[in-house]
Amino acid sequence: MSQRPHTPLLDLISRPADMKTLSDDELCQLADEVRAETVSAVSETGGHLGAGLGVVELSVALHAVFDTPRDRLVWDVGHQCYPHKILTGRRDRIRTLRAKGGLSGFTKRSESPFDPFGAGHSSTSISAALGFAVARDLGGAPEHGIGDAIAVIGDGSMSAGMAFEAMNNAGHLNRRLFVILNDNEMSIAPPVGALSSYLSRLYAGEPFQELKAAAKGAVSLLPEPFQEGARRAKEMVKTMTVGGTLFEELGFSYVGPIDGHDMESLLSVLRTVHDRATGPMLIHVITKKGKGYAPAEAARDRGHATAKFDVPTGKQHKAPSNAPSYTSVFGKALVELAGEDDKVCAVTAAMPDGTGLNLIAERYPSRCFDVGIAEQHGVTFAAALAAGGMKPFCAMYSTFLQRGYDQVVHDVAVQRLPVRFAIDRAGLVGADGATHAGSFDIAFMANLPEMVVMAAADEAELMHMVATAHSINDRPSAFRYPRGEGVGVELPEKGEVLEIGKGRMIQQGARVAILSFGTRLAEVEKAAEALAAKGITPTIADARFAKPLDRDLILDLAADHEALITIEEGAVGGFGSHVAQLLANEAIFDTGLKFRSMVLPDTFIDHANPARMYEEACLSAKDIEAKVLDVLGVAQIGEKRA
Amino acid sequence: MSQRPHTPLLDLISRPADMKTLSDDELCQLADEVRAETVSAVSETGGHLGAGLGVVELSVALHAVFDTPRDRLVWDVGHQCYPHKILTGRRDRIRTLRAKGGLSGFTKRSESPFDPFGAGHSSTSISAALGFAVARDLGGAPEHGIGDAIAVIGDGSMSAGMAFEAMNNAGHLNRRLFVILNDNEMSIAPPVGALSSYLSRLYAGEPFQELKAAAKGAVSLLPEPFQEGARRAKEMVKTMTVGGTLFEELGFSYVGPIDGHDMESLLSVLRTVHDRATGPMLIHVITKKGKGYAPAEAARDRGHATAKFDVPTGKQHKAPSNAPSYTSVFGKALVELAGEDDKVCAVTAAMPDGTGLNLIAERYPSRCFDVGIAEQHGVTFAAALAAGGMKPFCAMYSTFLQRGYDQVVHDVAVQRLPVRFAIDRAGLVGADGATHAGSFDIAFMANLPEMVVMAAADEAELMHMVATAHSINDRPSAFRYPRGEGVGVELPEKGEVLEIGKGRMIQQGARVAILSFGTRLAEVEKAAEALAAKGITPTIADARFAKPLDRDLILDLAADHEALITIEEGAVGGFGSHVAQLLANEAIFDTGLKFRSMVLPDTFIDHANPARMYEEACLSAKDIEAKVLDVLGVAQIGEKRA
Repeated sequence: MSQRPHTPLLDLISRPADMKTLSDDELCQLADEVRAETVSAVSETGGHLGAGLGVVELSVALHAVFDTPRDRLVWDVGHQCYPHKILTGRRDRIRTLRAKGGLSGFTKRSESPFDPFGAGHSSTSISAALGFAVARDLGGAPEHGIGDAIAVIGDGSMSAGMAFEAMNNAGHLNRRLFVILNDNEMSIAPPVGALSSYLSRLYAGEPFQELKAAAKGAVSLLPEPFQEGARRAKEMVKTMTVGGTLFEELGFSYVGPIDGHDMESLLSVLRTVHDRATGPMLIHVITKKGKGYAPAEAARDRGHATAKFDVPTGKQHKAPSNAPSYTSVFGKALVELAGEDDKVCAVTAAMPDGTGLNLIAERYPSRCFDVGIAEQHGVTFAAALAAGGMKPFCAMYSTFLQRGYDQVVHDVAVQRLPVRFAIDRAGLVGADGATHAGSFDIAFMANLPEMVVMAAADEAELMHMVATAHSINDRPSAFRYPRGEGVGVELPEKGEVLEIGKGRMIQQGARVAILSFGTRLAEVEKAAEALAAKGITPTIADARFAKPLDRDLILDLAADHEALITIEEGAVGGFGSHVAQLLANEAIFDTGLKFRSMVLPDTFIDHANPARMYEEACLSAKDIEAKVLDVLGVAQIGEKRA
Repeated sequence: MSQRPHTPLLDLISRPADMKTLSDDELCQLADEVRAETVSAVSETGGHLGAGLGVVELSVALHAVFDTPRDRLVWDVGHQCYPHKILTGRRDRIRTLRAKGGLSGFTKRSESPFDPFGAGHSSTSISAALGFAVARDLGGAPEHGIGDAIAVIGDGSMSAGMAFEAMNNAGHLNRRLFVILNDNEMSIAPPVGALSSYLSRLYAGEPFQELKAAAKGAVSLLPEPFQEGARRAKEMVKTMTVGGTLFEELGFSYVGPIDGHDMESLLSVLRTVHDRATGPMLIHVITKKGKGYAPAEAARDRGHATAKFDVPTGKQHKAPSNAPSYTSVFGKALVELAGEDDKVCAVTAAMPDGTGLNLIAERYPSRCFDVGIAEQHGVTFAAALAAGGMKPFCAMYSTFLQRGYDQVVHDVAVQRLPVRFAIDRAGLVGADGATHAGSFDIAFMANLPEMVVMAAADEAELMHMVATAHSINDRPSAFRYPRGEGVGVELPEKGEVLEIGKGRMIQQGARVAILSFGTRLAEVEKAAEALAAKGITPTIADARFAKPLDRDLILDLAADHEALITIEEGAVGGFGSHVAQLLANEAIFDTGLKFRSMVLPDTFIDHANPARMYEEACLSAKDIEAKVLDVLGVAQIGEKRA
C-alpha cells in the first residue's frame, strides 16, 4: 500500500455543504488534496484514473457553487466521478472501488443521493438533466424539491447522436439547464469526427478566458474580470465566425472556453451563470485528461484505465497473463484475413483498442473506420459497406451493440446484408458491473430472421468463427466472446471455416447431455470431472451456433439421454429458448425428456470479478454439477446452493 | 377507379436513362405528369401521398442529372419514393402499392436495383450513402462499379441523432458525397426542436435562390444565373450569421436554400455540384409537402398518409370502423388519468397522432413532450422524469422502441425507474410491412430484470393495463397492443388496476390448455368454437403478463392438461420461452407435458393486410385449431397447412 497523502482540508469535508465556508484559496487547496487522494485510491484499487484527474477542479467548483443533492448533478459515463465520490460522503469507501461489495466505478442512484442518475454508457447526461429540469418545473418532487439540473459531458460523448437529440430538445424546451462541456480532446481513444475538429477550432490559438464567444448574450453574465476580455472578443467576432455558434444555433447560450484547471475562472463563471441563467446554457471547459499526475499525463491514453500502480513511478501491477485475450485473438485473426482479402474492412464505435481493431487500423488504415461514439450510424454504415461489395466486420461490445439494435434489425437483417458482428465483452464483465454486462445479445440477435449467431467456447474456436463469418457472404452473422483471457488452448495457424449450424461433440457419456453455447464449456468440463468421481459421465457438446441450431445434434442428444441441459452466458430468451422451441415443435417434450436451461438469472449483477459474478449467477462448475445431480435424482451431500 | 391522367412524356420513360435526351422544359412537363400519376395511383391504393408530391421535381432532377443505378440514390424513410418508383421501371406496378404481392410502400433492395438501400425507419440515409461512397473508394463493387452516393433526407429525419452521427463521420472522412436536405417543415407531425427553428431561420424572409450561404466555397460551384445572388449574399454575410454554418462546421459544403419546385434551379445546382464537388456537400432544398394537389396542401398533415380517395375532391374512402382503435383507447385512458393525477405525463418521439398522445397534448400541453425523432433521448428523458418524481408514459411503436433499446436497459431497467412503456403497433402491422413489424419487443423487454411486461387481449384490457401501469411506481412496466381497431368489447367507465403477474381464465375445458398473450385471444376463441363442433373443449386462459409470469396459473394448467399451448404475436424468445423456462425449472417437462409455443415464424413477412399476414405466420384460428388437433393426435380431414 502506498503512503496516504496529507489532506488536512479534505479531512474536514464530509459532504459538499462543508465546502460552503471555504475561501476560494482553500477550494484550490482542496482540489489539490482531492487529486492526491484520487491518485492514492486508484493506485490501490485500479480503475479509471485519467478522467477523474481532469475534473478535480471542476468537481470542487461545481459542489462549491451549486447546492447538491437538491441541485441534480449528472456526470456523463461516470468514469470521471471518483473526485465527486470523495467529496460526497464516500471517501471512507473510495478504496473499495470496483471490488465486490464496494463502490461502483460509475455513478449509481442506489449508492448515494448525490448520484441522481447513474451512468456507464455515454451521452445520456443531457437527456437526464433535461428530465430533471422539466420535472422540477412540473413540481415532480415536492417533498425535497429539485433545484438546478447540471450535466457534465465530455467532448467524445457530445459527438454521439443521443447527445445531439437531447441538445435539440433542450434548446426547444428552453428550461434553465446547465451543460458543462468537459473538452479534453479525448474520449477513451482520441475523438474522431467533424464535431471534434469544430471544438478544436473554437479555442485554437486563443488564450483561455478571452471568452471570444461571449458576444451573444453570454457576455452580460460574466463577472467583472471577464468583461474586458469579452469586449475584446466582441471585436474579433466581427471578422470571424462566432465561437459556439453550433450550440447557439441549437438554442443554448454559450460561455467559453474556460481553463478547467483555473479554479478562479471556474468559480467566477459558475457563480455568474448560476445567478443569472434563465434558459439552457453550455459552458465550454477545457481540461487535460490525467492532469496533475505525470505518469497519466504522459500515457497515450492519459491514464484512462489502470491496474493497481505504484504512485511515485506510475508502474502498474498487472497480473501476468496465461493466455492471450479473446480481443487480441480476434484482432490478429482479422488482420490476417485483411491481408488475404482486400474486401475485408472493420468498423468500431470509438473503441479501437478495446475491440482489438487497433491492429487492423495500424496495418490497413484505409479499411478500418472508427465512427466515434455512434453505434447507430456505425451499424448502418457497415450495412452499406456490405451492400457496396465490402466484407465489413462490425466490432462492438455486447452492451454497446444495444445502441445500434434497431439498425441491426432494420438495415442489416431485413436487408439480409452480410455484416459480420464481432460481439466482444459478451456475458458478465467484472468490475464495470451491471451497466456493462453483455447479457442480452443472444436473445436479441438470435430471433432475427436471416442472422447466423455463434459463440466461441475458447480462443481457437474464436479463430474459426472469424474465418466462418468471413465466409458467410449472403447474410449477416455474429459471433460473441467474453472479456478477458482465453482458456489457454493451442491456437491454430489459421482459423478454419466451420460448417454452418453444426455443433461438435466434446465427450460421449450417458443419461445426461450438456449442450454448451460459448465459454461456459470450460466449467462444464470441470463439472464433468467432479461428476466422474461420482460415477456419472455426462455427454458434452458444444453447440457453436444458436442460429441456425444443429437440429440433428439436438434431437440425437434428446433421443439418447434422459436429460438435456443447455447452458449459456446470457439471459432467458436466447440459446436455451431456441432449443426449447425446437424440442416443442418436434414433440420431444411429449416423451418426458428432462430439459433444463441454465441462463443468467433475472437480476442485474453488481460489479465483482467475473468468476464471482458467475458464481452469483449460478453458472459455475459447482452449479452445473448440482444441476446434473438434481435432474438425475441423485441425492447430494451437504446443502444445495440457491 | 378514377380517370387515368394524360401522360404522353412519362409514357416514353421506362427507366431514368430515357430521360437523358429530354430538354429542361420537357423535364418540367415530365414532373407534372409524374405528379398526376402519383395522385392517380395513390387514389387507387391509398398510402403515403404528401411526401412524394413534395419531391416530384427533385426526383426528376436527380434522375436527370445523376446516373442511377450506378450512382446510389438513397431515399430516407421512403415515404417519398413513389415518384422515384414511377421513374425507375415500376410504373406498371405502381397501382399495387402496399398490397400483398405488390410494390412496397418504401424503397426495397429486393424490388429494384434503383433501390440500393431500403428504408422504412428514418435517418439512415446519410450512413448508407457514406457507406457506398467509402465502398466505392475501396473498390468494393468492381463488376458494376459505384458512382456517386446521394442521400435525400427530410428536415424531420435530420433531427435524429443517427443523422448527426453520420454527418459527423462524413465530415471527418471527407469523401465526395451528396446530402439533399429536403426541408418541408414537416416530418409526419410538424417538426419540433431547435434544429427545426435553425432551418427556418436559414431562409426566413429571404427569397429563394439568393443562396445567402454561398459565401464560403460553395459559391464557386454555382452556375452563372446564381452568381449575382451569391455576390449579394456575400454582402449580407458580413452583418449576419452565416447560413448553413451548422453544416459547414461539421465539414460539409453548403448550398442553398433552393426552391425545390423550381426545376430550373434544381437542375442548375445539381449539374454544377455534380461536376465540381470533391468532398461532402449539403444541398438545402425547400419543398412543400403535398405540393400541387390542393386537398393534400390543405390538409393538416399535408396528405401524409391517405386511404383511397376521389381525385377531384380528395375525399377519402375510409372503411367504417366497428370499434375504436387501440391507439385512441390508450390516448383517452391516459387523458383521464392525467386529469386525476398531475404527475402523469407523456413522451412521444415525433408521433403524437400515431400514438394517440395528441389528446393529452391538447388537454394538458405542459405534460406532453414530443422530443422529435429521438427515441434514444426520449427514453432517457422519461427515465429522468421518473427519477424526478413524475409518472411518465413513453408511447412508441414497437419497431421504433428498438431505437431506444439501450436506454431502456441502461437508464430505465438497471435503475429500476418507473417509466411506463406504451408499446403501440405490436405484432404485424399490415401495409407498412417487414420494416415496421413489432415482432421483437416481448423478447427484448421481458428478459430485462425489474421490468413488468403486459399485453392487452382487447381494448378493455388495454384500459386496465394503462391503469395498472400507472399504479406501478417502483419499477418500469410495459404494455403492448396492436395496430388497428379493437375487437368491439364494451369499454368500462374506468380501467381497473390488475393484480401484477396474474392472468385470467377465459374458459375451463379439458385435455388441452391454450395460454394466450395479447390479441391472438380472439383467434383462440374462434378456434375453440370450431373445436367444440369436434367435441373438443380446450381450456383457455389470458396470461396478461409475460413478466412476472403467473406461476400458479401455468403450473395448474400444466398439471390439469395433457397439453399446453402458448400463443403470442411475437418472435421466439418471448412469452412462450419464459413459460418454457418456468416449466423446465419446475421439472414439468419430466412429466411428458405436451408443450407447444406458437410464435411468429423465422422470416420477415412482407406487407399485406394484417389478417393475411397472420395467416402467413400460421397464427390464425385455423392454425390454432390444427395445432390442438395435432397435439392431441386427432386425425384431421384434408391437408395440413404448413
